[in-house]
Amino acid sequence: MWVRKRKLRWINGLSPFQLIALFYLFAVTIATILLALPVAHQPGVEFAFIDILFTAVSAVSVTGLTVVNISETFSTPGIFILAFVLQLGGIGVMTLGTALWLLLGKKIGLRERRLIMTDQNQNTYSGIVHMIKQIIIVVLIIEFIGFLTLGTYFLQYYPPGEAYLQGFFGSVSAMTNGGFDITGASLIPYKDDYFVQFINILLIISGAIGFPVLIEVKEYLTKQAPEAQAIRFSLFAKLTSFTFLALILVGMFVIILFEMNNFFADKSWHEVFFYAFFQSVTTRSGGLATMDINQFTEHTQLFMSSLMFIGASPSSVGGGIRTTTFALVVIFILTYARGKTRIRIFRREIHDDDLIKAVVVTIMAMLSCFTAVIIMMISDPFTLNEIIFEVTSAFGTVGLSLGITPDLSTVGKCVLMMLMFIGRIGILTFLFTFKSDKTSGKYHYPKERVIIG
Amino acid sequence: MWVRKRKLRWINGLSPFQLIALFYLFAVTIATILLALPVAHQPGVEFAFIDILFTAVSAVSVTGLTVVNISETFSTPGIFILAFVLQLGGIGVMTLGTALWLLLGKKIGLRERRLIMTDQNQNTYSGIVHMIKQIIIVVLIIEFIGFLTLGTYFLQYYPPGEAYLQGFFGSVSAMTNGGFDITGASLIPYKDDYFVQFINILLIISGAIGFPVLIEVKEYLTKQAPEAQAIRFSLFAKLTSFTFLALILVGMFVIILFEMNNFFADKSWHEVFFYAFFQSVTTRSGGLATMDINQFTEHTQLFMSSLMFIGASPSSVGGGIRTTTFALVVIFILTYARGKTRIRIFRREIHDDDLIKAVVVTIMAMLSCFTAVIIMMISDPFTLNEIIFEVTSAFGTVGLSLGITPDLSTVGKCVLMMLMFIGRIGILTFLFTFKSDKTSGKYHYPKERVIIG
Ligand SMILES: [K+]
Ligand SMILES: [K+]
Repeated sequence: MWVRKRKLRWINGLSPFQLIALFYLFAVTIATILLALPVAHQPGVEFAFIDILFTAVSAVSVTGLTVVNISETFSTPGIFILAFVLQLGGIGVMTLGTALWLLLGKKIGLRERRLIMTDQNQNTYSGIVHMIKQIIIVVLIIEFIGFLTLGTYFLQYYPPGEAYLQGFFGSVSAMTNGGFDITGASLIPYKDDYFVQFINILLIISGAIGFPVLIEVKEYLTKQAPEAQAIRFSLFAKLTSFTFLALILVGMFVIILFEMNNFFADKSWHEVFFYAFFQSVTTRSGGLATMDINQFTEHTQLFMSSLMFIGASPSSVGGGIRTTTFALVVIFILTYARGKTRIRIFRREIHDDDLIKAVVVTIMAMLSCFTAVIIMMISDPFTLNEIIFEVTSAFGTVGLSLGITPDLSTVGKCVLMMLMFIGRIGILTFLFTFKSDKTSGKYHYPKERVIIG
Repeated sequence: MWVRKRKLRWINGLSPFQLIALFYLFAVTIATILLALPVAHQPGVEFAFIDILFTAVSAVSVTGLTVVNISETFSTPGIFILAFVLQLGGIGVMTLGTALWLLLGKKIGLRERRLIMTDQNQNTYSGIVHMIKQIIIVVLIIEFIGFLTLGTYFLQYYPPGEAYLQGFFGSVSAMTNGGFDITGASLIPYKDDYFVQFINILLIISGAIGFPVLIEVKEYLTKQAPEAQAIRFSLFAKLTSFTFLALILVGMFVIILFEMNNFFADKSWHEVFFYAFFQSVTTRSGGLATMDINQFTEHTQLFMSSLMFIGASPSSVGGGIRTTTFALVVIFILTYARGKTRIRIFRREIHDDDLIKAVVVTIMAMLSCFTAVIIMMISDPFTLNEIIFEVTSAFGTVGLSLGITPDLSTVGKCVLMMLMFIGRIGILTFLFTFKSDKTSGKYHYPKERVIIG
């Protein structure tokens, strides 16, 4: 148990959960100011405050829902600002803040370590500083490779400056799962270019599968052969990767099944494969799309809403209830139905505490989304299906839309901003924001844990 | 622990949960045969098998969803058969079966007692035989009072024979929460008759609040003053009554709020009060209505769907996840958010086991309803809102509809029959149907329990 003499400053009275919420609010404020700068806009563009705020929340939470057309509204400096905000949101305000402290040569104290730990959902104090460095290095390397690959490839479509700008923004937007586009129509211009789609899929998955997985993979890849064999992938890495993969495959399969006689009726096998593959991957958190989702049937859209509700892996750039939460809830119910109480996966036993967390996250998330849907049914004139799609997209910080975002009422925009915020910081962090710091210590155990929501 | 030499008959290999499912299936079969008898129909009426089956499932599960107009389809003997099936479904096949054994002078063994216990969700063996007698007496007395009151009152509207037939069927349909009508338009003909509405509200609540509450109230009322003071209402009775009342009040309040500028815009205060009161009560499980729910806005309809999903009290004639499940889940989340683990209500501590049950029931129910909605989006051409309303109505065995039931496809009808069946036997019983008998013993504790789903 961690004990320390408290200073009398009010900030010390806040729990890590409250501090994280506060830091994200701070990031949104900074982003709003930056995006409101006249230099960020195209000449002659006027921008309502609520729309700047919406864009800032959408960018900090790396959701990608937009009330404006990015390329028609923002200037090139504005696009760089947006990319910067996405980076800030994607890697996490906490992580970046600590990195800054590192660069300034400050030692990170236990209090600061705990903050990071909660943001990235890590359960041990040790190795956190090391981990943050790793995160930043890995993200920047992947983004740089994405930028070079896409930029160079785009030389066939655009003049060099434009090609590398498109490559830069595309790589950042895909890796951070920002889901913003400067093409004006997401990835629809590349609907027949499977290379661009495939690079985007790799970038989206890299962002959404969770930093711990990336780092474990990196360590596995960079070690020599005898050492690599000694590396044991963590329970978390196995569970989240397996669930992630399963969701993509099931998503693909169901989309193909549901659209066989509709959107896919006149498509060739490779078009079917890539449309279904890309749209399944993008519901994890990406938010980019290679088609207008309105062309799908309503039941496909509703199914995609449920995928977006699940969202990405914890400790990733994505939102939603998170893949591990979903996996634990499913395993929990199956185990309970068979009358057992101990839950084992990959030869490890799951903590009761984690199961309870998973279940609380799921039910809280459903209640939040349902309340949001009811409010938007009152405030906005769209169909129930369109609103459910928009709500789960915001909660999962996915950013897909059936096209209603620009026409939303102010109430509707506020509801979505709230959901993006909750979706990004995690519903448990949001819940614990209203709680004092006293009991948070007991959520830490020496045994191996699974990260929830 | 109960140990007994097993006979070699296959039925002994079944768990109580499996036996209950089996008995309900048996009741549906009987009901289907009875309702298919030519004497039950109006002259010249032709009836598809799927529609007879649907009516049988709807009646046994006391849901009240109908694909046909009852008064135009069924003859007077048919209406008596329907009332009999409602009675059978309402009091519970298990309870009636045991009562029959009682009448035949057979002693009820432990195995049979366990069956009843699971059906009515009672957690102690003692007093079960006594309880069943009580249930039947209380139900028949309340129905008889309802029949006399309504029948005599109806003399102002109908000739005597018709008045008492309407009174008889109306009383049975309301008390069992069957929700069927022989007026051809639910209680809409009585939309200005507050007396009829009030009697119906009392009957619906009597059926839906749970038999244990009725019996505790009866004991309280029939005891002398000093004895009555000594009676302690059970935790279950308090929790379920409080939740039931709270849901009715919140339901009324929200319906008034949502319809203030729509359906209630030109209504007087007493019309507003009775429309909102009746429609809030009926979502608990009643299924009768004093208006066409289509006249409400979509957000009111969606809100009513959530009320129907919650449903009635356990050990009642209703379905859904049950009021206690909802109450425990809400209390659980509020307690968890405040960082506590022990849950206390009315100075009693809740078992962890009951919390887990509540949570499993809620999530399973959401998954079932979501799956049903997706299937019906594919099979039937109605709006998402209409389908959600129909699905939650079936799962909560409520029987309200936005009018799509008669036009459903065969797939749609099958999905709803499945939901009515699951809603009535309880999702946990349904879940445990797939489980062996071995571990069921451990769900029983000596401490005071709360009945879940
Ligand atoms: K996104
Ligand atoms: K009913």
